[in-house]
Amino acid sequence: MRKITLTETVALLLENDNYRILTHTYPDGDTLGCAFALCKALRKLGKNANVAVEGDLPAKLRYLANHYREQAFTPAYIVSVDVAAMSLLGPQVMEGVDHIDLCIDHHRVNSVEADNIYVDPTAAAAAEIIYEIVRYLGVELDEDIAQGIYTGVSTDTGCFCYTNTTERTHTVAAKVMGYCNWKEINNINFVLKSRAKIKLERMIYENMEFYAGGQCAIVYTTLSMQEALGTTDDELEGIASIPRQIEGVKMGITMREKPDGTFKISVRTNDRIDAAAFCARFGGGGHPAAAGCSIEGTLGSVKEQLIRAAEETL
Amino acid sequence: MRKITLTETVALLLENDNYRILTHTYPDGDTLGCAFALCKALRKLGKNANVAVEGDLPAKLRYLANHYREQAFTPAYIVSVDVAAMSLLGPQVMEGVDHIDLCIDHHRVNSVEADNIYVDPTAAAAAEIIYEIVRYLGVELDEDIAQGIYTGVSTDTGCFCYTNTTERTHTVAAKVMGYCNWKEINNINFVLKSRAKIKLERMIYENMEFYAGGQCAIVYTTLSMQEALGTTDDELEGIASIPRQIEGVKMGITMREKPDGTFKISVRTNDRIDAAAFCARFGGGGHPAAAGCSIEGTLGSVKEQLIRAAEETL
Repeated sequence: MRKITLTETVALLLENDNYRILTHTYPDGDTLGCAFALCKALRKLGKNANVAVEGDLPAKLRYLANHYREQAFTPAYIVSVDVAAMSLLGPQVMEGVDHIDLCIDHHRVNSVEADNIYVDPTAAAAAEIIYEIVRYLGVELDEDIAQGIYTGVSTDTGCFCYTNTTERTHTVAAKVMGYCNWKEINNINFVLKSRAKIKLERMIYENMEFYAGGQCAIVYTTLSMQEALGTTDDELEGIASIPRQIEGVKMGITMREKPDGTFKISVRTNDRIDAAAFCARFGGGGHPAAAGCSIEGTLGSVKEQLIRAAEETL
Repeated sequence: MRKITLTETVALLLENDNYRILTHTYPDGDTLGCAFALCKALRKLGKNANVAVEGDLPAKLRYLANHYREQAFTPAYIVSVDVAAMSLLGPQVMEGVDHIDLCIDHHRVNSVEADNIYVDPTAAAAAEIIYEIVRYLGVELDEDIAQGIYTGVSTDTGCFCYTNTTERTHTVAAKVMGYCNWKEINNINFVLKSRAKIKLERMIYENMEFYAGGQCAIVYTTLSMQEALGTTDDELEGIASIPRQIEGVKMGITMREKPDGTFKISVRTNDRIDAAAFCARFGGGGHPAAAGCSIEGTLGSVKEQLIRAAEETL
């Protein structure tokens, strides 16, 4: 395990061949965008390269593999992209893999066990790093590479809206958008909503409750709601950001019933309210503005505990 | 009336003094962002400059005038920004104005009667033009100028998501974001929702109906709904984009009851369905993907006509 520079990373990619590129479980636009972009760049250098994905590609992101066909070869050099920890590498992705040669990532806390590690936490998306790597590899941009990079930077920043966006994010977008159908990519990732998602949002708005003089908003989904709607895990994850968006709300709490008798709690805060400290009261943790925990009990009893804690905090 | 170049525009701004900068009615982030940014730039050159706004500043955008104080002088040089037609200049803005010296705009169709006209329709926002002007004026960026430009480019492109976004939009954002609190600007313009707006969206989802095998979605707001919710005109305008966002919908129709016994109809389409031709059947018009018309009648009768026309079109 040694930390290496961008130049050393590029040198390793130029020296080796027969790449297997690993993506993280519950693959998102950044890990997949990076993997397919890097794969195409390596193939353009005459090398063999495949992408390893756990399960099926999410339907939304299938366009990333539009021109991709698996190659037949024995993997000799293993690279992970946008993977922060070994636990995020699923069994299918790790099939036949006994060690990782190179880890390319942007997460501040990275615990991947790899021979060589290049982590740049100033990148809003790992795709910003892949953009630089492609440039240093001397590979010309094409649609496959550009759409992978654009998908990574746009999805990891909520279309350039989240606070992790930087000047570099915009600059990378400006460089790649001329080579891909970014209008359709935005439409798929940021505009279109499934009818199940519309119904889910409507239910969320219907059961939203306000406490602490409107400073705390709580919403929930029960198992029977989830079943009735047929929403995906991805769609359920997305609702955590809804309650905090409301004017005057400093703490948005989302409760999601799990089959094991617990509720998965997501807390999002504004105005320097410490979400991690709040969740630590229930044995959870996370970041100052986004944290989580699990609480056992009925909808009523769990909500009761959360309201009491929120009123004490606010 | 003569069309001039960017260089000539900058020369005129350097030569003259005592500026009144005109913004359009129902002022948005682009016209106001441009006006306050240009005003500050001219003041930094030692000139007198004021911004003219019709009515109050929208509450959301008040931050644009955080450091602005009106100066006392007699206006001698009149400049309009982001104004496409004389009818968009309100009586308060035009008080004491008998002619316009300079029109700076980005609308492809511009009919402002001004001595000098600089229109660049390749700019997604007029603020992209103001960015160039500030640079050529030799004025250094500061918070006031940067927040005006960032507000203009981000609001006119739906935070870099709409199809009018270009490489230049991203490049301008990258150049100005280091000088202003763009995180808070995004929060105000793209994240926060009023409780009235949440209620409005919930009502819209509740009354949404699908026709033509799910290809057409129709929503409506009646006068009594609008009154009960207390939503602003701006919030009501925003709902026109909702029905088209749903997967499978090719034509989204929004009906808004007006006090004069008519319904204001907004039509948004995907997949090359001609919204303008659709609205022309009812005496309206517009763009291929976004058009409108007015229809007299009850909710039931107007909806009936729209459904019949939609089923014929799809």
